[in-house]
This record gives sequence, structure tokens and C-alpha cells, in this order.
Amino acid sequence: MTAQKKKILFVVMDGLGDRGCRELDGLTPLQATPTPNLDWFVANGISGIMDVVAPGVGPGSDTAHLSLLGYDPYEVYTGRGPFEAAGIGLIGKKGDVAFRCNFSTVNEKYEITDRRAGRIKAPETTALVKQLNGIVIDGITILVKEGTEHRAALLLRGSGLDPNVTDADPHDVGPVGISKGRTKKAEFTASVVNKFVRMSYELMKEHPVNVKRRAEGLPEANILLPRGAGSFPDIMKFSEKNNMTGACVAGVGMIKGICGICGLDVIDVPKECTGGLDTDMIKKADTAMNALKKYDFVLMNVKAPDVCGHDSRAKDKCSVVARLDEMAGHLRKKIDDIVIVFTADHCTPVETGDHTGDPVPVAIYSATAAKDERTKFSESGCAGGAVGRIRGKDLLPICMSLANRSEKFGA
Amino acid sequence: MTAQKKKILFVVMDGLGDRGCRELDGLTPLQATPTPNLDWFVANGISGIMDVVAPGVGPGSDTAHLSLLGYDPYEVYTGRGPFEAAGIGLIGKKGDVAFRCNFSTVNEKYEITDRRAGRIKAPETTALVKQLNGIVIDGITILVKEGTEHRAALLLRGSGLDPNVTDADPHDVGPVGISKGRTKKAEFTASVVNKFVRMSYELMKEHPVNVKRRAEGLPEANILLPRGAGSFPDIMKFSEKNNMTGACVAGVGMIKGICGICGLDVIDVPKECTGGLDTDMIKKADTAMNALKKYDFVLMNVKAPDVCGHDSRAKDKCSVVARLDEMAGHLRKKIDDIVIVFTADHCTPVETGDHTGDPVPVAIYSATAAKDERTKFSESGCAGGAVGRIRGKDLLPICMSLANRSEKFGA
Repeated sequence: MTAQKKKILFVVMDGLGDRGCRELDGLTPLQATPTPNLDWFVANGISGIMDVVAPGVGPGSDTAHLSLLGYDPYEVYTGRGPFEAAGIGLIGKKGDVAFRCNFSTVNEKYEITDRRAGRIKAPETTALVKQLNGIVIDGITILVKEGTEHRAALLLRGSGLDPNVTDADPHDVGPVGISKGRTKKAEFTASVVNKFVRMSYELMKEHPVNVKRRAEGLPEANILLPRGAGSFPDIMKFSEKNNMTGACVAGVGMIKGICGICGLDVIDVPKECTGGLDTDMIKKADTAMNALKKYDFVLMNVKAPDVCGHDSRAKDKCSVVARLDEMAGHLRKKIDDIVIVFTADHCTPVETGDHTGDPVPVAIYSATAAKDERTKFSESGCAGGAVGRIRGKDLLPICMSLANRSEKFGA
Repeated sequence: MTAQKKKILFVVMDGLGDRGCRELDGLTPLQATPTPNLDWFVANGISGIMDVVAPGVGPGSDTAHLSLLGYDPYEVYTGRGPFEAAGIGLIGKKGDVAFRCNFSTVNEKYEITDRRAGRIKAPETTALVKQLNGIVIDGITILVKEGTEHRAALLLRGSGLDPNVTDADPHDVGPVGISKGRTKKAEFTASVVNKFVRMSYELMKEHPVNVKRRAEGLPEANILLPRGAGSFPDIMKFSEKNNMTGACVAGVGMIKGICGICGLDVIDVPKECTGGLDTDMIKKADTAMNALKKYDFVLMNVKAPDVCGHDSRAKDKCSVVARLDEMAGHLRKKIDDIVIVFTADHCTPVETGDHTGDPVPVAIYSATAAKDERTKFSESGCAGGAVGRIRGKDLLPICMSLANRSEKFGA
């Protein structure tokens, strides 16, 4: 007898985990907010807590999502550059070296006066990168793409590259930095970076965009400063690794980029799903449920709780929790015999305003899982359940087993 | 003061873990069946859940038992051939390449017409392998032994062998397969396999056993078809690794073989311990308790729950659980100051009919363990206990510590 394979939905509530807030009488937003629908999934499923990357390690959104997709971030994460690049749609291939960049302003003495070029944004940045994209320096092809606001990504493609170079961005105003190879082998790459920086200045300083900005008294975006070098990782495709098709439903570029690197199809979300506080969570849930008709696995990311954590707004985070619970209620009405997970990619406690390494709650619902006795979806409510304390990278295999999709090891 | 070393008994209830069954109103067989004796061990001991191989990975009986014996199956498991061979008493040594084989039937055109030779069995198979056991092909000694029904195992011994070869068994009727080396280095081994297959035909086709079967209109067992090549692993002996003597009490050949490979003594079980549903569990428990007089560690395997899982019989699994509980009651009366563990090697849910990667319950009793508050032996009952969620390979070290047998690391 072969058991029916089930589909799997991960609902990742970004930065949802928290700590006790003074404003909430020492409770976390999840503890302080009634969540009858999320609680239903806990009561009828199994729950636990999860170290998304490793105990006590505060995950980035990138490393967290790699873990949730079943990868070991310590094996596949090669630095922020490649993932930032992928996040804005610049998905490279093995051997490429990727960087994050800022559009910055330098004066006539070639000194940085504004690291963010007055937070310039598209369509101006789009026009500027056109000058640079596709040029060749010492046999290396340059690929550049604009990101949000003053951000961009840079890919170097060609032979003899090595990511072990220092930043050309000095992370401060003053003289432009010089990239250096940390090893003999990386010196060529550093020289290409330095030539690229100089060339970005030469090609952009008299660009019509900058002529206009100068006339308007705005900081010119007359240089691109790369940082965070990393090799483009050679990640085994999600579908190949897990023998199932996968897609992601997310509003945030970074999450889309990571899912794209892993080979998931990135589903377009309705314009109401903004990735911000004003996002339409119900529409996003519907998009995810629709995607599940076609795909075996869907990861859905809702960014809103993270935003409240970063901005240290406890009450707002409680409101977001209430809206997430409504969304869970909506999903509850729609799902049939699937495996569905409610969890977070990391904690963004209101108290700290940034990601922490505290474990996140996880609730796994599958009609036939051997239920435990936990009843409340929260950091403490899920602790002590049948899932125990797991690592992020083990969540997918655990769900694949419940979905009758795991392969036997041995006989 | 040196603490008294205690003896350790593992009671492995094969395939015991399960999921919610429709037939049992959504409960697992363990949840649905009163188990006062197993519960006593939970209430007076510590409990938890265990990923026998790794989270979400469905273990085979072989990889599971390697883990329970404290080995990392990802390090020592070298494929099914060597473990199947060991399971029927053909325990090889490092460098040997082992295969599983079927006695099959080929016609005068050398095409397979019955992959199982009419499910021939001993003593006919015993007589047939005598022709082949000990022959030498290109300097390689051939060792063959019959297994249950139409099954056999093959060991190649000599220099220049490599297990990286394809099966000669095409897993279907039709032309006999040709084994191929997946690497240059393995081509010699493949050629030996192919010569062995041909020779098995030449030596068996006119064997009196087959002359008689032909006369009776039965499929002849006139060829042996090897598959599942694997190197015989170089496993550190259990006694050497753990500084204690060990034995196994099991009815199933595969389990005996694995324990044998690891260097445990394999204790003969009374004929009433069949490895099937009709097994006499009390007699098996007595055999294990007797073995504990001589050995420091005993692993006892009861196969019955696995059989019910594979056959998808929920009610029968409940009856087996009740009988296992009686056995636990019997053991409770017999044990003195030992460390005793009740657990499973994997889940075989009634719903799926095969091994899954869901965690199994584990209860560890030691008179002096710091008790937790759990009270029921089941998948959910053991979750949240003092053992937490552990890996299979960590169970033995945990028990060795409770038995005052672990060595200090550091000063």
C-alpha cells in the first residue's frame, strides 16, 4: 500500500516571535492577543519551538528562509551579496561573484559626501544602471541591477574570480575605499571591483539624471560602491532535492530572491499584498491556496509582524497578530487534507527592534498526526508540544514525513 | 566513590509508533489502548520522543537498529546487501562485497520467466547453494547462503573488489541483466558478478533438485540474480566501542544480522518467539532477562506491532499493544536495579502501511533518574517529558550515563 501524498503549506509570519513587553504587562504580542484560529491548529495538530538557524543565533531573513526550505545555511549561505542580488531579480550562476551596492555621492575630490545619494530611487536608478550593465572589464562581464531606493546589486561573471575581497564601500563618508584581495588568488577580483567603481563614476557623473539632480540641488548618484562579496551558491534545486514542486508567495524582494535561488517558482501577488503593514493578508492567503492547486509545496511569507518589531510598536504588533489570526481562520475554511504549518522565520522582539536568536513557535497541522495536548499558539503555548524543540532545517523533512513524501533510508 | 555500573535492557517494539487512525476515532493504537504497565515505567521514569535516524527520515529496520546501538547510520550503513547477508548468518569482513539474490527461473533462451522460482525454499535452496559456495572466479572466492523462501545472499571475497556495480537482477521478467561498473574501478567486480550468474545457471540447471521440479511441473530454480551491492562495513565492535558486553534477542533474521555485524552475541530464542503476530512475548522477555545475567546490555526486538502496521490493521495493533503491555508488566516484576528502555525502531502507521519518519515514543526507567511529570506511554504522552526530542544514536549514551557507564570527557 502506498499512502496518498499530501500537499504542504508553510505560513511564515515574519519576525512574529517576541519577548515579554512592558507595554503588554510582560506578555508577548502573541500571548496578549486572542488567537482562536491559530489556537485551533495547535489544538488539532502538534506544536513546538524552533531554532530556525541554531540555538541563540539570530537569523537573517535569508538564512532563515534557507533553513525553512530544508537547506543548511552554514553549507549554502555564501554571504549577503548573492542573496541581495537574487532578491532584486539578478539571479546568477555558479562561479559568479555578487555584491550589494549603494548609489553614493562623491565630490570633485572623489570623496564620499552622501552614502545614499539622497536616497535616490527608480526610475532614476534604472536609467543610471543602463550605462553600466553589460560592460566588460579585463574579460569580466559586469551585470548591475537597481534595487529599492539607493540600493543596487552587482554580479561579476567570468573566469578567475574569487569572492575573498574587502568592500570598496568604506561604510562612511570620506575617501572612496579600495577593495583588496584577502588572498593572492582574490587580487584580480579586487582589481576588477576597483576598476568598476572608477568606471561607474566616469560613466555616471555627467549622465542626464545627474545633470538634472545637480540643477535641482540634489545629491548626485555618481558612483556605485560594492560591499558584501559572495560567490553565487551552487544550491541543489528544491524540486530535485525533495522530489516535489514548490512555489513562494511573498511581497518582499529578498524572500522572493532566496526562493528563486532555491528553484521555487515565485508567484506574483496581487498589488494589495504590499509586504507592509497595509498588506491584504486574506488576498495573500487566497493566492497561496491557488498556488497549492498546481504545486506540491508553497511557502507564504507575511512581512507585517516584522515591521512592528523593527519599529518597536507592541500594540501594532498585537493588531497584526489579530489580523494574522483572521487569515488563519480563512485558511482553516479552505484547506482540505494538507499539511499546514504556522511559524515565523525569526523573532523580532519589540524590545530589541531587531532579529534575535530566541526560538519561534511552530504549529503543524495534519489531519492524522498524533495530536498533543497544547492549545495556544504562542512562544510558551507551543513549547512542550509533540514537536519538541527542533532546528529550522528539520521542519521540511518532518512535514514531508507527515505528507507521506519522505523516502526510507535503509530496508 | 565509584558508582555501581548497571545493566541496560532495550525493549524495541518494532514499528510501534503510529498516527491518528479513523478506525480509532483519531487516536493512535497506543493512545487508544490502556497500557497500565508501560505507563508505570513512564510515570516512574523519564520520557520523550526520538528521531531514530533523523527528523522526518523513515528508517529501515537496519538503519534504525544501527542508530539504537549507538552508531551513526550515515557513517556505517553501506547498503542493503551486507546487512541482508548478515541477517541470514553470512557475516563478511571488511573488503567483502555483498549482494542480495533471488533464486529465479530462466527458460532455454536464458530469459527470466519467474523472478522467485515459484517461491522455492529450504531444504531445496540449501541443496542448490552447495554447488556454488566456495567456488573461485578470477581469484575471487564466492560465498553463497540461502535465506527465507527464494532469497539468498552472495559475498565476493578477494582483492580489487568495488561495490559500485549495477544489479544483474533486472527486477522484472525478460532477459537476464548484465551488471556494469559505475566506475572504471568497479568493472572487474561487475565481470565477476556476470560470470557468477552464468555459472549459477550452468551448475544448477541439471541439479537433481531442478530435475525433480521439472518433472513435477514446478518452476526450476536454475539461476541466482544478485542485486543491492554494498561493501561489508568496517564497524567498530559494540563491546570495544562501549566497554560493555552486548547481546540481542530477536526473532527476525535482519535484526539478528545487524546485531551480529555490530559484534553483539545473538541469543537463540525459543521456537515460540516467532517474529510474527503469534509470538510468545513473555517467553522472549524471559530470554532477554536471562541474557542480562550474562551480558551488560541486551537489545530485545518484538516484531509484532510492525506486522499490524504493514497490514494496516488498527484493531490488531491495539491487541498487540495490550500484549506488549502485559509483557512490560512481566518485566516490571523481574527487573532489579537496571536501566530499561521501551521504545520503537520506527513508526509503521496503519494509515500508511509503511515506515514513516515520524518520531517514536521513548520511556527510560532507572530507579534514580530525575523523574518528570509524564504518565502515559504514547506518541503524545511521552512528548514534552524530561528526555525531550532526541536522535536514535544518542539513546545508548544517555542510558549509559544513567547506568554509570559513561566516560568523562575532560577533567
